Amino acid sequence: MKPLLGGVELGGTKCVCILGTGPDDIREQLAIPTAGPDATLRRINAVLDEWQRKWGPIQALGIASSGPLDLRPESPRYGHITSTVKPGWQAADIIGQLAGHRGVPSAINTDVNGAALAEGRWGAARGLQDHAYITVGTGVGVGLVVRGAPVFGCNHPELGHIRPVRLPADTWPGICQFHGDCVEGLASGPAIAARAGMSGSQLPTDSPVWEPVAHALAQLLQTLLLATAPRRILIGGGVMEHRPELLHRVREAFVKSVNGYLDIDDLTGGIDSYVLPPGLGALAGPLGALALAADAHAAAAAT
Amino acid sequence: MKPLLGGVELGGTKCVCILGTGPDDIREQLAIPTAGPDATLRRINAVLDEWQRKWGPIQALGIASSGPLDLRPESPRYGHITSTVKPGWQAADIIGQLAGHRGVPSAINTDVNGAALAEGRWGAARGLQDHAYITVGTGVGVGLVVRGAPVFGCNHPELGHIRPVRLPADTWPGICQFHGDCVEGLASGPAIAARAGMSGSQLPTDSPVWEPVAHALAQLLQTLLLATAPRRILIGGGVMEHRPELLHRVREAFVKSVNGYLDIDDLTGGIDSYVLPPGLGALAGPLGALALAADAHAAAAAT
Repeated sequence: MKPLLGGVELGGTKCVCILGTGPDDIREQLAIPTAGPDATLRRINAVLDEWQRKWGPIQALGIASSGPLDLRPESPRYGHITSTVKPGWQAADIIGQLAGHRGVPSAINTDVNGAALAEGRWGAARGLQDHAYITVGTGVGVGLVVRGAPVFGCNHPELGHIRPVRLPADTWPGICQFHGDCVEGLASGPAIAARAGMSGSQLPTDSPVWEPVAHALAQLLQTLLLATAPRRILIGGGVMEHRPELLHRVREAFVKSVNGYLDIDDLTGGIDSYVLPPGLGALAGPLGALALAADAHAAAAAT
Repeated sequence: MKPLLGGVELGGTKCVCILGTGPDDIREQLAIPTAGPDATLRRINAVLDEWQRKWGPIQALGIASSGPLDLRPESPRYGHITSTVKPGWQAADIIGQLAGHRGVPSAINTDVNGAALAEGRWGAARGLQDHAYITVGTGVGVGLVVRGAPVFGCNHPELGHIRPVRLPADTWPGICQFHGDCVEGLASGPAIAARAGMSGSQLPTDSPVWEPVAHALAQLLQTLLLATAPRRILIGGGVMEHRPELLHRVREAFVKSVNGYLDIDDLTGGIDSYVLPPGLGALAGPLGALALAADAHAAAAAT
């Protein structure tokens, strides 16, 4: 019998709790608005506890959280948020407050690493062991799976902050407070809005603002291909969803930038099946948490 | 008893054969000049066969080769060189010709992935499971270890070809035939020589040519930190060895570029122990082949 798993997706505006054994057997799902950490985490615990009374004990808990997170196993701040602009959440002990008292296997990772894992298990990267998940929204987040598990060295991937080469004569400074014209500073929703004076969903498809956006995202794809060489790259988030034609521009700019150095068709099976929208939609986050729970349960069972 | 392992490092100008059970027990080592593929691979086979008559059967073979290589397990060209400027070597079946007839476990990977593995096992990244190895020489090669094994998705890492942001007003076009001003096109030995009109080893330390070289390499480090976030980054190769002061400039430019977005001291233990020269010197390549052989032997024993 499949174990009953709990999942929590922690986001800047809302948190989603989920209970089930997998995507075909979701027993409960509830979104609550994100407030301060103590109130929010207490409410999430109450939701999970109520579900346990109804469905029986949760056997593992997965947490997919917006970052940055300290995920170094040896760190005294393991499972804490490190620095964030969200009031009160700096240094919040997520894993301790949600899982510490439960006595079941647990895991925490970034929301995008979780989403990448879920897409590989149940979504548009199903069956793959090496793939990437990009979300282009209020920021640019990248989740990276290598050999079936999310990447973590001394930190989780933060590829939205690489500095892409700019289009000739494009000197717009970008809006990242740390880097100015990193990918996030050039291609996130707020960056597009700042540059265009209106949101991307209102901006005409022939606006000259789209070209540098596509170019920056294409540099991110090239970097991914040259780094861990994902078998597939999924790219979604609010900016992509509102402007589906942007995907074609990103693909074109990516192929142009690689410039024949690698045979993309041979390596990937062709650009149109290589760079794709995610398959799980709004469920990628909560299912990411569930996938993390499943892996924590399996790892504990194996030892 | 430790298994007797054979290793072959295949390079553009020479190939090194090695026999032993590990770095403390190297029984044989021989360098031969690289000629055409058939003659070279036949000679390597003869060397290995002679060593077997002397020392007994080789129990696994590892090959660390200059790339690009097809390493997709499902590919009919697995273990072949794909495209290269080395005459005759295009499409050469390395794994087939060196290991096909031996009936023992074998593995092939890039020379830099092998070197990264060896540095993690026996060198300057000893004990780490997530680290990177950069060589700056005739090209810029990057080996990447994640969770103790070399990275390979649909391709091996090729991070020397990312396109770094340029220093303000630096418009030198670079020499990469595919990308112009990618990291390799800006910071490899031939790039430095093309820009300066003399080799890096002759170029004064106060030459203005060094600043854009350090800047390009720093962008590569930033990309690594934001991608798989290695626990340590080793950077060597001819350019670095001839100009040890370049390491300090690269570290400085790297810290400046990250610009406080990540707390490098906290994450890595400090820049001076984070970005280091490799520890194995000229043995990194052959020991990389031996490490690949050891892992192939262990994987076969485990199944």
